[in-house]
Amino acid sequence: MNFCSNCGTRVSHRIPPGDNLPRHICDACNTIFYENPKMIVGCVAEWEGKVLLCRRAIEPRHGLWTVPAGFLENGETTAAGAQRETLEEANARVEIDAFYALYNLPHINQIYMLFRGRLLDADFSPGAETLETRLCDEADLPWDQLAFATVRNTLIHYFNDRRKGEFGFHMGTIEPMARAR
Amino acid sequence: MNFCSNCGTRVSHRIPPGDNLPRHICDACNTIFYENPKMIVGCVAEWEGKVLLCRRAIEPRHGLWTVPAGFLENGETTAAGAQRETLEEANARVEIDAFYALYNLPHINQIYMLFRGRLLDADFSPGAETLETRLCDEADLPWDQLAFATVRNTLIHYFNDRRKGEFGFHMGTIEPMARAR
Repeated sequence: MNFCSNCGTRVSHRIPPGDNLPRHICDACNTIFYENPKMIVGCVAEWEGKVLLCRRAIEPRHGLWTVPAGFLENGETTAAGAQRETLEEANARVEIDAFYALYNLPHINQIYMLFRGRLLDADFSPGAETLETRLCDEADLPWDQLAFATVRNTLIHYFNDRRKGEFGFHMGTIEPMARAR
Repeated sequence: MNFCSNCGTRVSHRIPPGDNLPRHICDACNTIFYENPKMIVGCVAEWEGKVLLCRRAIEPRHGLWTVPAGFLENGETTAAGAQRETLEEANARVEIDAFYALYNLPHINQIYMLFRGRLLDADFSPGAETLETRLCDEADLPWDQLAFATVRNTLIHYFNDRRKGEFGFHMGTIEPMARAR
């Protein structure tokens, strides 16, 4: 951030009085700009024992598989956001059953919130940001081609919980990937 | 938002190609600005059967009571944010036990995430944004002077769950207050 989005003056970056973190501050119009983590909401959507996966047509992780998920929008509830992403990415209608997993990604200022749900019908197809949609069971899931650790962890919990006959709630923190040597 | 925070040019507000919501767009440097909901993290912190409340020294709801809570910061996990807010607002150290309640406030683009925890000691006192700190049981809690519906709902669930001997997870959506006639 270089300029005040309110009045266009160049901003400074310092700790405001009474605060303890540096913020971008406009000394012309006295606006303080706060930057906060964003939420990504999505859904493990089941149909006849299989879960809906999407192969990404966009970066990051173009060509890899994920569950429908994306940034929560203003004016939306978390469950409504998960439903909207399922509709946008897979043209699929899902009923939300429960909040299922929360992952912190503090190194990229993201919080993942994934729900469990059931597809209302088997009518789905790739949305604009998706190359391919597919229903997968545990055995035929592309485990080595998943886009995100959050999705991988959630799906591992999902199939384990289903085997046990009881879905818990799962929370964790994803650390940045170790660099290749 | 009037000006691009990157290059200082006046922005327009329209739907970018491939999107379906209007965003602020800078045609000079091609930056698209996304605005997303913010998370408020906090904690119901217990000590010897009572919960820690803070009387607010700041707006909104100056003078009313809340549990320690505030905006999640970049680089933070949700639980770490709840601990930090407890330290900042009540100078209290808390151990987090579980994620307890999520409230959507879509009309103000906020998601409340409240944890359950235990104070590590009875050493607490008002922080800079707090007029007064107090341990309250259900009977002596200032129910008619609580600052937020999120806090009220969470505390009602908390004492109910404790009576039942089992803490669930609670999720809900808070609608804007009806206007006075």
